[in-house]
Formats: sequence, structure tokens, C-alpha cells
Amino acid sequence: MTTSASPSVIDLRSDTVTRPTPAMLAAMMAAPVGDDVYEEDPTVRRLEEMAAARFGLEAGLFCPSGTMTNQIAIKAHTEPLSEVICEQTSHIYLWEVGGIAFHSGASVALLPGQRGRLTAAQVEAAIRPENVHYPSTQLISLENTHNRGGGSCYALEDLQAISDVARRHGIARHLDGARIFNALVATGQRSEDYGQFFDSISVCLSKGLGTPVGSVLLGSAAFLKKCKRIRKVMGGGWRQAGYLAAAGIYALENNVARLADDHRRAARLAEVLGQQPYVAEVLTPETNLVIFRLADTMPAADFLATLEQQGIRASSFGPQWIRFVTHLDVDDAGLNRVEAALAAMA
Amino acid sequence: MTTSASPSVIDLRSDTVTRPTPAMLAAMMAAPVGDDVYEEDPTVRRLEEMAAARFGLEAGLFCPSGTMTNQIAIKAHTEPLSEVICEQTSHIYLWEVGGIAFHSGASVALLPGQRGRLTAAQVEAAIRPENVHYPSTQLISLENTHNRGGGSCYALEDLQAISDVARRHGIARHLDGARIFNALVATGQRSEDYGQFFDSISVCLSKGLGTPVGSVLLGSAAFLKKCKRIRKVMGGGWRQAGYLAAAGIYALENNVARLADDHRRAARLAEVLGQQPYVAEVLTPETNLVIFRLADTMPAADFLATLEQQGIRASSFGPQWIRFVTHLDVDDAGLNRVEAALAAMA
Amino acid sequence: MTTSASPSVIDLRSDTVTRPTPAMLAAMMAAPVGDDVYEEDPTVRRLEEMAAARFGLEAGLFCPSGTMTNQIAIKAHTEPLSEVICEQTSHIYLWEVGGIAFHSGASVALLPGQRGRLTAAQVEAAIRPENVHYPSTQLISLENTHNRGGGSCYALEDLQAISDVARRHGIARHLDGARIFNALVATGQRSEDYGQFFDSISVCLSKGLGTPVGSVLLGSAAFLKKCKRIRKVMGGGWRQAGYLAAAGIYALENNVARLADDHRRAARLAEVLGQQPYVAEVLTPETNLVIFRLADTMPAADFLATLEQQGIRASSFGPQWIRFVTHLDVDDAGLNRVEAALAAMA
Amino acid sequence: MTTSASPSVIDLRSDTVTRPTPAMLAAMMAAPVGDDVYEEDPTVRRLEEMAAARFGLEAGLFCPSGTMTNQIAIKAHTEPLSEVICEQTSHIYLWEVGGIAFHSGASVALLPGQRGRLTAAQVEAAIRPENVHYPSTQLISLENTHNRGGGSCYALEDLQAISDVARRHGIARHLDGARIFNALVATGQRSEDYGQFFDSISVCLSKGLGTPVGSVLLGSAAFLKKCKRIRKVMGGGWRQAGYLAAAGIYALENNVARLADDHRRAARLAEVLGQQPYVAEVLTPETNLVIFRLADTMPAADFLATLEQQGIRASSFGPQWIRFVTHLDVDDAGLNRVEAALAAMA
Repeated sequence: MTTSASPSVIDLRSDTVTRPTPAMLAAMMAAPVGDDVYEEDPTVRRLEEMAAARFGLEAGLFCPSGTMTNQIAIKAHTEPLSEVICEQTSHIYLWEVGGIAFHSGASVALLPGQRGRLTAAQVEAAIRPENVHYPSTQLISLENTHNRGGGSCYALEDLQAISDVARRHGIARHLDGARIFNALVATGQRSEDYGQFFDSISVCLSKGLGTPVGSVLLGSAAFLKKCKRIRKVMGGGWRQAGYLAAAGIYALENNVARLADDHRRAARLAEVLGQQPYVAEVLTPETNLVIFRLADTMPAADFLATLEQQGIRASSFGPQWIRFVTHLDVDDAGLNRVEAALAAMA
Repeated sequence: MTTSASPSVIDLRSDTVTRPTPAMLAAMMAAPVGDDVYEEDPTVRRLEEMAAARFGLEAGLFCPSGTMTNQIAIKAHTEPLSEVICEQTSHIYLWEVGGIAFHSGASVALLPGQRGRLTAAQVEAAIRPENVHYPSTQLISLENTHNRGGGSCYALEDLQAISDVARRHGIARHLDGARIFNALVATGQRSEDYGQFFDSISVCLSKGLGTPVGSVLLGSAAFLKKCKRIRKVMGGGWRQAGYLAAAGIYALENNVARLADDHRRAARLAEVLGQQPYVAEVLTPETNLVIFRLADTMPAADFLATLEQQGIRASSFGPQWIRFVTHLDVDDAGLNRVEAALAAMA
Repeated sequence: MTTSASPSVIDLRSDTVTRPTPAMLAAMMAAPVGDDVYEEDPTVRRLEEMAAARFGLEAGLFCPSGTMTNQIAIKAHTEPLSEVICEQTSHIYLWEVGGIAFHSGASVALLPGQRGRLTAAQVEAAIRPENVHYPSTQLISLENTHNRGGGSCYALEDLQAISDVARRHGIARHLDGARIFNALVATGQRSEDYGQFFDSISVCLSKGLGTPVGSVLLGSAAFLKKCKRIRKVMGGGWRQAGYLAAAGIYALENNVARLADDHRRAARLAEVLGQQPYVAEVLTPETNLVIFRLADTMPAADFLATLEQQGIRASSFGPQWIRFVTHLDVDDAGLNRVEAALAAMA
Repeated sequence: MTTSASPSVIDLRSDTVTRPTPAMLAAMMAAPVGDDVYEEDPTVRRLEEMAAARFGLEAGLFCPSGTMTNQIAIKAHTEPLSEVICEQTSHIYLWEVGGIAFHSGASVALLPGQRGRLTAAQVEAAIRPENVHYPSTQLISLENTHNRGGGSCYALEDLQAISDVARRHGIARHLDGARIFNALVATGQRSEDYGQFFDSISVCLSKGLGTPVGSVLLGSAAFLKKCKRIRKVMGGGWRQAGYLAAAGIYALENNVARLADDHRRAARLAEVLGQQPYVAEVLTPETNLVIFRLADTMPAADFLATLEQQGIRASSFGPQWIRFVTHLDVDDAGLNRVEAALAAMA
């Protein structure tokens, strides 16, 4: 199998494939470290504090993946015989191996969103009344940007409205912020405002921000104390994690604003795709994800195989839908190569 | 609180509220019994064998409730990190306290049915492909008649088609037959044909059949051996259960054909309801359940309260939908009283 | 297989094998019933209230088995990532199919008791300190009488001392009272005193008390509200359970004092056993269980087979240990037959 | 709080506190990486293959911690309603937050070992017979060296005998090899022989081997395919993990033989401790752990506080037991300082 490390490959499968820049790598290797299980890694601690402050929450917990931060939060917010409200194509339901049921024994109320976005009215209608036959609704989890919705962003007033419904019913509020920085850059929202809308936020560092490994779970200090034990049982209690945390600090300081370039390139790809006869529909990109549907005459497998021959990789959602992801390792030269390959398939 | 035992009350809330007839009670009292945990209750054994034979399956397991038989079956058919396909309003998902997640740690793929009925194409499309991010689809569970669909019945060819899809993909097939006898009587299908479509069937005895307590889980002997241990851990290992089993035997021998009367009365209620100005929509009853939507001017709570004053009880699904259930304890005189009460509300 | 209903069989395997007397059966069949899922069965309610009052607790919940009442209580008292302290041969650990882990995801701290009895010092030493590596100790569960300890009884001051330790550490206290009436009759303790030592008590009606089916879980009203939902998901939400509850009421009113006869007969059996050359050791019976160890020259399988030929049944714990249980269906004539059979084997 | 990075501190709490040497750090920085979720990180793959080959097993899976590799293996080897046999002070039971129950819903059979070592006879006696009341024994897990046993090592013939018992009963065999290299170096056993005794081995790289983060789970390719999905749901699916894997490769190539130095230093510490009046008992060290009991006149808390004042850290097990761990960051100069501090306390 070709590894993504091959220089000629343009990898549009995901923004998880990025590798650290030399400057980030230098920051990693210079990091002071300690044993994080004993809470003694100064770089981990600095990252956790920095991320918490940025989102207006009290504390942070650095973990090996976004699946772990999401699943820890779901576990910590719920008890067995509970139910979690989420969008029917949300990552926590669709792509985390059924972890909501596996770890938390919790049921799901799956709502159909508009490009992944829920409304406060939908959420309120999905709350289970008190009844011995029902699980009790204990958590609403949103995703911003919403992956399957094509990198769509929530308006702040919608977050506010959903948050209000949840508070009124005593339901915890979690945000899967795997690509939250894309949403912030695209909408101009302030990260500091998010802490009032959510009891916990999972922030991924290894997608658009370009670090090798890691997500940070944010919340109150009391909540994260509970989460630390769950992290431990899930096997996320790592030791000298400061090398990875240093990459996160570097990314928070250097790689956020540049996400606008990824968004610009995604918009350009969408425009080019919209001109191709073999493309039936393109979800207008709001950030760095371009999701489109191929015409029936162009099966996804054929499309991907043709691109692969040009050294371009992408991924499909089912038989006709394709996702392109722009990121740190796709520059304008790469973009031109993709455009040329798309044009050549017409 | 008024108990449902009050002679003047007509209880349309559920067919679970029936009480044994004197003949059934006499059969119960006369039953030989033994310790069922040691597999030594002859009446329990006779019921299990009778029910299994009737549905063309190998063996049976008598349990305290349909929730237990369903949840045992789901547990026995799945492993953690699996997914169960079912209709989005099915009883196993909606009214069993999130038991699929709680007991089995399994995720759910929730499909929208036509009055609760799924198609083979829907089921096939919901099967998860092999992927490290996905749970593995291990079970399809149908419900016949479908409660929330208004007592709707599956055609035999649709059961066949879904069964074929499941077999082809190596997925187990369970039937929640809480009201399977209603379906059989309404459609004229033969119970003996069902064993080929399902690996397990849950048959309830305490709904339309009128026994006090109990459901039987049917399947292969090997499957039920596994289930017996699950029943034990769930606390369903009861002792001299033969008294209850005797009621089941009596019901299988005497109370099946008479379900046609319940269906006739349900049809009559639907007709009367359809004539009322405060009723917006009635799901044409196929069996003994009448589900209808009140006009916006008639809140469910008011409607139920008015009926209650006439000694008539029913239940609501949300703010506008009402369910009436006909059963052994609702005769034509009772029906007339309900019709009069409905007319008086116009 | 011979059923235990055969008139000539003396069944010493367990006190669960008893069948109702004619008077109990008459009480059952005369019971007013209703749908217990709707909380409308008056006989169930009466039993629950009677049992709660008798043990000085607020409310009761009638369930199909003692395994269910124990497992519901454990679930309701604990959260995942917790630990339950119990004796290493306790029923909840040894004979409930690993239900503590299965239902509650809880770890166990297994302590060696003196004939199943723990001390307050042992319990206190087993409480886990606060540490991210440890589950948190949330429940201490005792068993009285203790089955594997040979029907041994706790002194009231020991219950008091353990209760005090638990309270001081904020740990819930459960009693598996499968044979609590044997303990009460043997020691002369008052059941009403027990409510102060335990947050929940599981009381079995289908062992020495002689009813066909059922146990009652006792506790505070708030606790039992939580338990009712757990009972529902476990499939213990039964309908017209009043027939079984009526047997329980009859037993509470008529079958408690007579347990002294069972104890007298157990003592007599122990005496006879102690005189046999093939018996190595007899745990002095404190109630209705006689546990003894055969000499190496007499394998348990041979011993049981010889008894079986005389129409006497018993059960073994491992290769050398045997348990005899006296109960309602073993009278003095039966006892004489057992004594004769034992003497004949010498 | 003082971090362990302080140059003057001698940290005997654990061998997890080590930090990479400059050479290891250089190897990390130079590693080629890729997205390990897509199985495209060449350095991760190389580490997994190298570790598998070294232990005579087919494949490997690199994970963030030894708790994760242990818990994944336990989950993959068992089904719910099963039981795991392990020593009563084993790490998987005592220090992994009750993960056996939490993740796997499995019960535990806890056996008392001789300094943590079990015998084949003990294991065989703990296997549950077939019975509806029992969980089914599905896994035996050993720990070598055994932490709580004071770094004790198994003889090869004992591993062979236990393995034979397990095979004969169809029970899976796991080894918690958190400190397996210490055992290999101390006994002269060959790692390649281990693959025949175990179906899975967890090998830790961040203890004595001195890497920052990570453990490798070894087993058959089919087993690890199952484990990869469990790793994903637990949140162990990390991305460019090659930087950490590179440290593991470096350690396997350079840091194994030097464990003999740690053992020599542990033996020296034990000797010194044995001469102190305030030490009641020392478990003769077999590897790099020195576990000893203080005399009643010297509470653990006082002892640790006095050492801390000298810049020496250690940890306690309960009120009188202390553990010293030697490792890469404790040299002879450090040893001398510890000896002096111990002598000064006499």
C-alpha cells in the first residue's frame, strides 16, 4: 500500500493526514515533559489551560483522540438508562463504533438536521417525558462544523437557543468541536463565547490544526475530575504526553488563522466541481469540506480510481457521494493539479 | 386512584389490562407445577413446547414479560460493538427503557416504516459496511402487528423478502410478536410459516390472549440454552411458574379465534371516530388498535379527561394522538357506551 | 426426568422446590388483580406495603426472583466505575451469573468471611481510597442467612457495626435476605430493626415461606422509583401479578413461625450426619441449611446417586461438599426416611 | 507541586517517570509518519512487526497505554456473562479502575498467588463448571513480572503448565507484560518462547524501556483485527503516532540489556533496607521493584515525607508498605543518595 507520506500524493481524504511542519516538530522536541498520570507534565498542563481559557471554560484534559474526548464526555454526562439527543449523521453516532451504547449504555434520539444542524424546537420535542418505559434524556450533543453536513456551521443564536432548551430541562450540553476552529474562522464567532453554551467541548488538534495526535476535552474542573477517571479506564492515561501537547500549543498559536486558506481552496474546488457534467450536486462549502454527489453515470469507485491514478486521494460516503477535504498539506499548486484532474474527467 | 378492576370502567388503554376468565383461573389452579429453574415445571414445559410447535420453531422459554423476551433475544443475537436494525417507532427502541443499549451495548439503526412496516430494500441499505469506525450489523428486529403503526400487519412476502436479505448478510432475525396472534387472525396467515422467517420470536400471552403474566421466547434449542442464562442474570429464573403457564396454555387453546371480535370492534370504533368533527385523522385499524389524531381544537388531555368522567380510559401518544385498544374485557355493551360518549363530545 | 412433583421424592436440594399448600392456593385464586405496570394491582400493592412495614422501610417492589431484586438494588446503588464489597462466597457474586459486572459494570471486593459473615473492620479495610486508578466503593452487600456459610446468621451488633462503617464512608448498604426469615426466627431478632441497618433489603418469598414465585425489594420510596425503571428494563414489569403476591401475603401471615420446624429438622439431620463414618465435617446448622463434607472415600456423586435411589435428592458444592435443605415439604416422616437412608450407607 | 522534571529529584515512585535520552529523542524526530487510523504510519507498523516477531506472535497493535492494551485484550477474549481468572492483586483487577467489569461486563475469579504467581492447579480449580447460575470462564490473565508481588518472575515451566490447563479447557490466555523485559533479563528466558504460552501479550514501552508513551498488544492477526475496532471505540485510534513508535523501536534496540543495572540497584536497595531498624520485612527483589514493610513505629506517610525532604520520592501501598522502583533515570550516584537518606533515618 502506498503511504500518504509519498511526496507526489495529494491527500483529500481527511485533514487528519497532515504531518507537522519543521517548526512544529522543533517545538515538540524542545518540550519539557513529565508523567501525566501523576499530573506532572508541564506542557500538557499548559496546553489544557490554554485551550480552556480560549473557550471560556475552566479546565482541560488532553487525550489521544477526538473519539476518546467525545466518548468520555458522553459517559461523564449520562447514567445508564439515559438517552442522548444528536443529529442522525453526527460523528458520535455514525463513526464512533456505537460507542454511546458501548461505553455509556445510553440510548440515542436521532434527529434529522438541516445539513447536520438541529433547531431548538427539534431538540425540545425529542426530550422524553417522565415514564417508566422511557430512558431519561440527559444529554444533547452538537457537532460544529458538522462533518456529514459538509462542514456546515451553526449560527450563534441557534447555539444559544438549543442551550436554553437544554438548561430549562436540566440536560447537559456537549459540543463535538472536531473542526470548531474552522467554524470560528468561517463565521468570525469568538471562541470565548462558547463556554456559556456548553458544559463540555471536545477540541481536536490533529485535524485542520495539523498536529500529529490529540484532542482536548474542556469543561468545569469538577466535570474533568470525573472524566480523568474515565480516561484512565479507557486507557488514555498516557505518560510523557508533553511532546504531543507542545504541537497543540504551537498549533493554537500559529495554525488557526490559516484555516481561511483551506476554506478558500474548498470554495474553489466546489466551483470547479459544479462545472463538471459528472457531478450532480455540490453542498456549498462553508469551511474546508466539499461534499458532492456524482451523476449516476459516474460511480464513486470509478471516480476515486481515476483520481488515484493522478496521485489524488479522496473518500466516498456510499455509492455516489464524495468528500474532499482541504488542509495544511494541500497548497495552491496541489489545488491546480486537482482542478486539472477533474477537468480531464469531463 | 381508581383501579382498573372497577366494574364500570371500560379500559381502552391497553390489552394488557385484561383479567383471567373463571375458566382460565380454574385451569391455573389445577396446574401441576415444579421448580422451573431446575427445568422441572411440567406445565411450563408443556406451554413452551406447544408455543414452539405452533410457530414452527424448536423450543420455547417462558418469561415474565415481553420486554424480557425481546431483550434476551437481542442480547443473545448480538455482541457488543454491534448494531440492531429496527423501525424508528418500534417497541424495543421506544418503550423498553433503552434496553438495547443498556443490556446489549448495541447501537441502533432506526428506519422510518410505512405504519411501522419496513421493506427489504430499506433493511439492506441500513447494513453497515465493514469499517473500523462502524459497529457491525448483527440483528434485524421486526414487530408484527406494529403497535405505533396502529396494529398494522406485514404481508408474508415482505417478511420473506426481509428474511432473505438478512440471511444473505448473515444477520439474525427477531420478531417482536407481542400481538402476533392479532396479525395471524387478521391476515389468515399460518403461524407455522413464521419459523422459517425468524431465528427468534417473542410471543406475548398477556395482551389480547388475556393471561395475567408472561411471554414465550421461541427459537432453536441451542439459542434458547444461551437465552436461559441471560434470563437468569436478568432475574427471570422463576420457580413454580406453572400457574401462569397454565393460563397461557388455556389461552392458546381458547382465546385466539375470538380476537376477530376485537378487530371488528376496533373497526367500528374507527368508523365512529371518523365521523366526529374533533377527530382529524384515523389510521385505518388492521387489528385491535385504533390510533387517531385529534383536531387542534381538542387537546388530548381534555379528550381523555372527558372520557374518564364517563368511566372510559384511553392513552395518548404525544399532545394530539390517542390510542384505543379493544380486548377480551370490552364487549359490545361497552362499545356502545364508548360510541355514545364519543358522539356526546361532538 | 422425574419431576419434583412425584409424591415419593424427598427433595433436599433447595427450599425453592416447595409447592403451595391448598390454603395458599385458595388465597391466590381469590386475589383481586390489576395491571401492575400501571401500578394498579391491589394485591401487589398490599404485599409491598406489608413487607416494607415489617422491615421498617418505606416501600416495596414485587419482582419475579431474588436475583432480580438483588441485581436491581446493586444497579440502583452504584454507578459504573464503582466497586461492591461482598463476601467471597456470597450469592450475588457466586450464583447470579456475574450480574454485578453484567448489569452494573461494577467491580467486586471479595472478602473472606467466617461462615460468610464479615466484620466491620474487614469492610472498612476494603474501601478503596480516592485514586484515579481505583473504582469507587459504593456498596456493601451482606447476606443473612448466608447460604454458602451453611445458613449462618449475623448478630445484630455486627450488622450495626458494619452499617456504621458504611454510613461514615457514604456507602450504600444492601441485604440479600433470601432467607432473612430463617435468620429472624433462629435469632429472635425483630424484622422492624433491620430498616435502620440497610438502605435496601431483598426478601424472598419462594424459599422457606413456600410461595411459588417472587421476591420483594424494600427501601425508600425514592430508591424504589429508580428501581422500578430498572425492573422494567430487566423485564420484570409484569401485569396481573396479584395471584403471586397473594401467596406472599398468605406466607407472611402464616408461614414464618413454622420455620422453627425446619431448623429443628436441620439440626437433627446434622446430628445424624455427624455420626456417619463417611462424613468428615458438618457445619453446625444455625437455620435450615446443613452443609457437610464427605470423607475422601465417599465422592459426592456416589453419595447423591445412592440417595437418589431412595427417592432423596440433594445437591453438591464441588467434589466433596453436600447441602441438605429442610423446608415446608419435608416433614418428620420424610426426615425419618432420610435418616434411615443415611444410616444404611455407613 | 514540584514536577518530576526537577534535576535534583530522585523519583522511585515508578519506572513510568523516565524521560527520553537525547538519542531516543533524535530517533523520534527523524521518524517517517502517516495516519495510523488508515494504517499508513510506517514507523508504527515497523514497531508492531518488530515487537510481534520478538515474542513469537503474528502481529501487533500500538496503543497509548498498558491499561488500554490489557483492557482491549480482555474485551476481545471474552463475551458478557463470562469470568476472568487472575491473581487477586493483579494490575488488571486492582489498578485499572474496575475496567474488567466496566468494558467487558465480565466477572472475576480472584486467586491468591505466591508473590503474585499462580499455579496451574489453582487455575484449574477456579474454572466454573457449566451451570445456568455461573458465568463461563473464558480467560486467564497472568502478570510477569508481577508488580504487587515485588517484581516477581514466573518460571517457564509454570507458564507452560498454566497454558496447558487453559488450552485443555478452551480458555484464552493473556499476559500483562508491563515489565516483561525485566522478567526476561532477570531469568534469561527467551521472548520468542512466549508466543506459545499466550494468545495475547501486552508489552509496555514506557516503563523500564524509557519511552514517553505507549504499549503494544501482540497476538494473531485475526485477534488484532478485532482489537483494532475495540481500540477505536476506546479512543485509541491515533493519527501520526510514529513519533512515539520510533521511541519504542529505539528502546527495543538499545534499552533492554541495561535493565540488569536496574535489577542490580534494586538488589542493593533491598540489602540496605534490610539493615534498617525501621524496616520490618523486604520482599527479596527479583527485578527492579523493591517492596518492603515498615515497622509499626514508622508510618508510611512519615517515611515518605522524610525522603521527600531529601528530594527522594517513593509510593506506598497502604499504611505500612512502600515500593521503590529503579529505572533509567536512577544512576549509581542517585542510589548513593538514597542509601545515605535511608541510613540517616535509622
